[in-house]
Parts: sequence; structure tokens; C-alpha cells
Amino acid sequence: MSDCIFCKIINGDIPSAKVYEDENVFAFLDISQVTKGHTLVIPKKHQANVFELTPEVAQNVFAAVPKIANGLKKAFNPIGLNVLNNNGEKAGQSVFHFHLHLIPRYGKGDGFGAVWETHTSEYSPEELQTIAKNITDEL
Amino acid sequence: MSDCIFCKIINGDIPSAKVYEDENVFAFLDISQVTKGHTLVIPKKHQANVFELTPEVAQNVFAAVPKIANGLKKAFNPIGLNVLNNNGEKAGQSVFHFHLHLIPRYGKGDGFGAVWETHTSEYSPEELQTIAKNITDEL
Repeated sequence: MSDCIFCKIINGDIPSAKVYEDENVFAFLDISQVTKGHTLVIPKKHQANVFELTPEVAQNVFAAVPKIANGLKKAFNPIGLNVLNNNGEKAGQSVFHFHLHLIPRYGKGDGFGAVWETHTSEYSPEELQTIAKNITDEL
Repeated sequence: MSDCIFCKIINGDIPSAKVYEDENVFAFLDISQVTKGHTLVIPKKHQANVFELTPEVAQNVFAAVPKIANGLKKAFNPIGLNVLNNNGEKAGQSVFHFHLHLIPRYGKGDGFGAVWETHTSEYSPEELQTIAKNITDEL
């Protein structure tokens, strides 16, 4: 896609710190480096977000993730790793070419964290079954 | 794995609000419901985390994600959706069977958010190339 910054990076029109490349996938450092080694894994085929992702492209992009995650582990010995994908501007997406953030973790205050409110007690088992049915009805 | 709560859910030994199932993948509501519709997508094969994930299992589990994400979108009309995978206790993993959180988003204060510190100015292009080489040397 001609006006997509990630397509330009894949094509080499914009420089990047490349981590991995195969026929279908490209991975490079996120310049924001939320933590050291923070890497983006993207499909070469331009698809905007998880809603547009075809199963084939989804398979290709995720097949490369364990290899890169292990490379990060060996290189920097993090205490953990988060994989994050944002879809929609209000969910934190700023480039509209599907991408997975691989974020090595080094401890509290390392740059990344999750706001995580649990609502376990607010739903009965019956209400959960109703929510699940709302979804399965749309599959 | 006999003492794994997610293996027991897959086998039906523990009840769940099932959202999706195929030959290789199982999806069900997270009882914490960080946001309404919060779904876990897991491989039927027990692998603890992204570091253990074989490329085949990675492909299978992610192939199902766009379909379920679109089901969530149609069911609840969220303004966005985050996909999160935690690896390691200190990165937020509490069940050691690989899982992807699909978290529909409804706006600020909906239960989920990311702590996200950018460090763009702290790394020169040369330093980024060095970090990338540290990783590629381990692939």
C-alpha cells in the first residue's frame, strides 16, 4: 500500500533495524523501544488489523513469533515477554498495517505494563453462557 | 497435562463458557471478563508459553483469531480490540498453558489499558542496529 509506512519499511524505502525476514513476514525494532529489544512482527501482505487478517496471513505471521521470541530471550535474558496487538485507534493502534509487538520484560518500571481490572464476581455462570452464545451466534 | 486447568477445560472436566472449538484450538470466556466478551484462545496441545510453542501449534492457534475477533465485533460492537499474550509470571502469566487474550475495547476505564513508555530518543540508529544484530545472532 503506497502510503503505508510499514510497507515502505518492508520495501526498504524507509530504513529499519531488521530482526527477521522470510517469504511472508518481516520483523524489525520498534523505534519507541518500550523495553530493550521491543520488536514488531508484520505480514508482508498489507492487511490493516486482526479483523481484516485472512487465516493464511494470520498463520504465516504467528509461525515466526516463537523463533523471534526465543531470539530475544537468548539475546537479553528477560524475565518474561508480552505479545500485544492493538486494533483500532482507541485500542492503541497508530499504524494501520497489522503488527504484533514483542515486548521483552525486565521487571517493574521497565516501560510496559497492563491495566487489568477483573470483573469475576459481576457475571454469573448463566450470564457468561449468554455472552458466549452472543459470540458463537456471529461466528 | 493432568494438573493443567486449561487442559481440564478442553477435556470438559471443568465447565467453561465455550466460544469456539476446532481440531486444534479451543476458545472460551475468561472468567475475569476484564471487558465484556474477554475471550481466551488456546491450543489443545499443552505448550506452556511462546518460547515452547512449535511453529505448527502457533499457526493453528492464530489462524482462529480473526474469526473469533470478528465474532466479538459483530456481537458487541466494540471500538477496538487488543490481543495480549503473557509469558512468564512476571509478565502477567498465571496459567502455564499458552493463551491469547482477546479483549474487546469500549472506551476509557473499560477495564484494560497499557502502560507504554516510549524511549525513542534514547537510542541512536546505530544502537538500534546493534540491538537488532544481538537478536539476529541468536535466531
